[in-house]
Amino acid sequence: MKSDLDRLMAERNIDALIIPGNEEANPYRDYLANGVHASATVIKKRGSDPVLIANGMELDEAAKSGLKVHNMTDFGMAEILQKYRSDQQAVSREFWRNILTTLGIKGRVAFYGTGDVMKTWKMLKRFERDYPDLIEIIEDDDTTIFHRARRSKDAAEIAKLRDAGQRSSKVMTETREWLAGHKAKNNVIYKADGTALTIGDVKHFVRLKLMEYGLEDAEGMIFAQGRDAGLPHSRGEEDQPLELGKSIVFDLFPRPIGGGYYHDMTRTWSLGYATPEVEEAHRLVMYAFTQSLESLTVGQRTRDLQELVCDIFEEHGHPTPKTKPGGSEGYTHSLGHGLGLDVHESPSIGNYSPDDSVFQTGDVITIEPGLYYPEKGWGIRIEDSVYLDESGTAHNLTDTTYELVIPIQNQN
Amino acid sequence: MKSDLDRLMAERNIDALIIPGNEEANPYRDYLANGVHASATVIKKRGSDPVLIANGMELDEAAKSGLKVHNMTDFGMAEILQKYRSDQQAVSREFWRNILTTLGIKGRVAFYGTGDVMKTWKMLKRFERDYPDLIEIIEDDDTTIFHRARRSKDAAEIAKLRDAGQRSSKVMTETREWLAGHKAKNNVIYKADGTALTIGDVKHFVRLKLMEYGLEDAEGMIFAQGRDAGLPHSRGEEDQPLELGKSIVFDLFPRPIGGGYYHDMTRTWSLGYATPEVEEAHRLVMYAFTQSLESLTVGQRTRDLQELVCDIFEEHGHPTPKTKPGGSEGYTHSLGHGLGLDVHESPSIGNYSPDDSVFQTGDVITIEPGLYYPEKGWGIRIEDSVYLDESGTAHNLTDTTYELVIPIQNQN
Repeated sequence: MKSDLDRLMAERNIDALIIPGNEEANPYRDYLANGVHASATVIKKRGSDPVLIANGMELDEAAKSGLKVHNMTDFGMAEILQKYRSDQQAVSREFWRNILTTLGIKGRVAFYGTGDVMKTWKMLKRFERDYPDLIEIIEDDDTTIFHRARRSKDAAEIAKLRDAGQRSSKVMTETREWLAGHKAKNNVIYKADGTALTIGDVKHFVRLKLMEYGLEDAEGMIFAQGRDAGLPHSRGEEDQPLELGKSIVFDLFPRPIGGGYYHDMTRTWSLGYATPEVEEAHRLVMYAFTQSLESLTVGQRTRDLQELVCDIFEEHGHPTPKTKPGGSEGYTHSLGHGLGLDVHESPSIGNYSPDDSVFQTGDVITIEPGLYYPEKGWGIRIEDSVYLDESGTAHNLTDTTYELVIPIQNQN
Repeated sequence: MKSDLDRLMAERNIDALIIPGNEEANPYRDYLANGVHASATVIKKRGSDPVLIANGMELDEAAKSGLKVHNMTDFGMAEILQKYRSDQQAVSREFWRNILTTLGIKGRVAFYGTGDVMKTWKMLKRFERDYPDLIEIIEDDDTTIFHRARRSKDAAEIAKLRDAGQRSSKVMTETREWLAGHKAKNNVIYKADGTALTIGDVKHFVRLKLMEYGLEDAEGMIFAQGRDAGLPHSRGEEDQPLELGKSIVFDLFPRPIGGGYYHDMTRTWSLGYATPEVEEAHRLVMYAFTQSLESLTVGQRTRDLQELVCDIFEEHGHPTPKTKPGGSEGYTHSLGHGLGLDVHESPSIGNYSPDDSVFQTGDVITIEPGLYYPEKGWGIRIEDSVYLDESGTAHNLTDTTYELVIPIQNQN
């Protein structure tokens, strides 16, 4: 939780953290500055509230964070620009020295955020060269203090995640109902105008539905049919018509329009009927899914849950990363991941998750076993997002049917 | 242009460039790997085509780039994972050594892309520590080789930018027409159901229109009224009803759904009527706008165009960054910026743009003068995106009326 940050900074001996300002979406800034849409720099000294630094144009927007906001002119930006004009390095060097000394930033400093790789590298190398008298730039653990803080969701965050889950589930349910209202001819699904219903049409419908519920498809949903369903990261081919009897993996991970907490869910559908092979595999995936949900406990190693699922699949003759890492048939990925302001957060639930990666109170995670046989022309994945409360009970945030087959009428 | 990259790498003495793979949208990868949606690492040696490295799940998607794709197992990933298991640092160290030696990457290497700040810092510091025998990590200029290559658009890119401009302009035009179809009562605009039309309603309409034209509002449009219109980066308040006689800044910068080339345009509207003050200021902004478009020439310093606009505004008594940098009244920002796979690209057109920043053939830029008086309750901005062709002629990619007032009928 956000309130853990000071303790986590103390544990890692971090005196201050800096989130450099930029225009891009930045979940770190969203987290510390309460979702404000300003390209402000955020600085937090250990034991103090974060402060924002913004230019004149951004002050009002930045103030919505409820945090103290400094104008860049507070650190002499106007004078520095007049002095060095287009020598951007000199401008930046003096401006940042003013910030560090005025705000009393010294010691071990960590930089977070998202941004341009080359810009990050150059900026931090310059900080190393320009302010050795003031600060040392530290490397946080792979599981950073933000990973740790953001991992454990507080009540306000759970309310938002629950809301995103309810709205996303409605979109999934209504998409299923809408598909069921179509008819088939010669194994292909048709629209009212007599042309084939394509994956592009479905995605268009889903985006409209999302918008109706105040959500957006910021990361690009997966709606993949047949062989593509067997490729876990294929997003599906826009022009492909929907056909009867093919497995369709529909992985939806929207967020509120403009940013916020994501939901993540997957269903596998087969229109009209399912082949016996897909039906059997779907049952097995559902079994692995329910087994892992039932086994999920606070204190359990995340790796153990992945291994449980691997064991189930291997017992039924499917290769998994437990014995065949990097394979592209059978069960080929991790069981899940944390969910929040990013689609993928801590913890990871894979075969190589570290020993000390255990499920905790406040975790919101996805559970998403699957089976993939691209060469056989099918793939299956089932995914819900769940929340582990203080008592260790898992609450499902996803609420829509797991049914494989969507009945489709034939056109005469 | 992309074909300039080898020359630009030679000029900067860069032997290879690496775009680390991650899940996030990455315009660098989009550019080199032809818009492919795979979380692949892209590596380009000078003089060779880029190659992709992806895991098993991503191979098919990565192959759509038309580039050579390596499976991570080609570099021993499976064996390395078995050997080091959860020691992720050791896994990464050996994996990357295999990549560097197998592909013959050595010498001066530059890293690009977008990603997590702490991850970038740690990864590049580790490269420095782990492979001093092989590579040196260089700092590119502030205007990187990608800035330079991406700045100059080729015919295929211009076609995409033109298309985005046409579609965006239609959305703007149709939004204007839709607003004109509303009625006012007591100075407030009403919907058919008798409730007030809010900025949230307008944004919803615009998002639906964008979707109809295959576009998405990935960065969050500005539709700001009254005082908010005077704050160039305010996005507008969702719950605020639209009122007669207030200036509205509508800044729209969509891209094709799922990613691609952006468009960027702004209009200022006043519903029903405009106050004389806003009308006069709008005329002046239009004058500055047309003057800068007429003056725009290949070879001209970008700073000179900004100064021309500053001079126009200052002659009419408005403060500008030329004499008062960092101010929040009058003209308070840069005249424009490059446009492409990012909303903001090279060149910048500001008072502190360097001497050697001059307009070039192939530039696609925005021209967006404005005047802002938040305390007086208004702001104005006009923006089109234009393209400079081989002959130095500027082509406007935006096509919608500049008219300030949208006539609104009063309800009886």
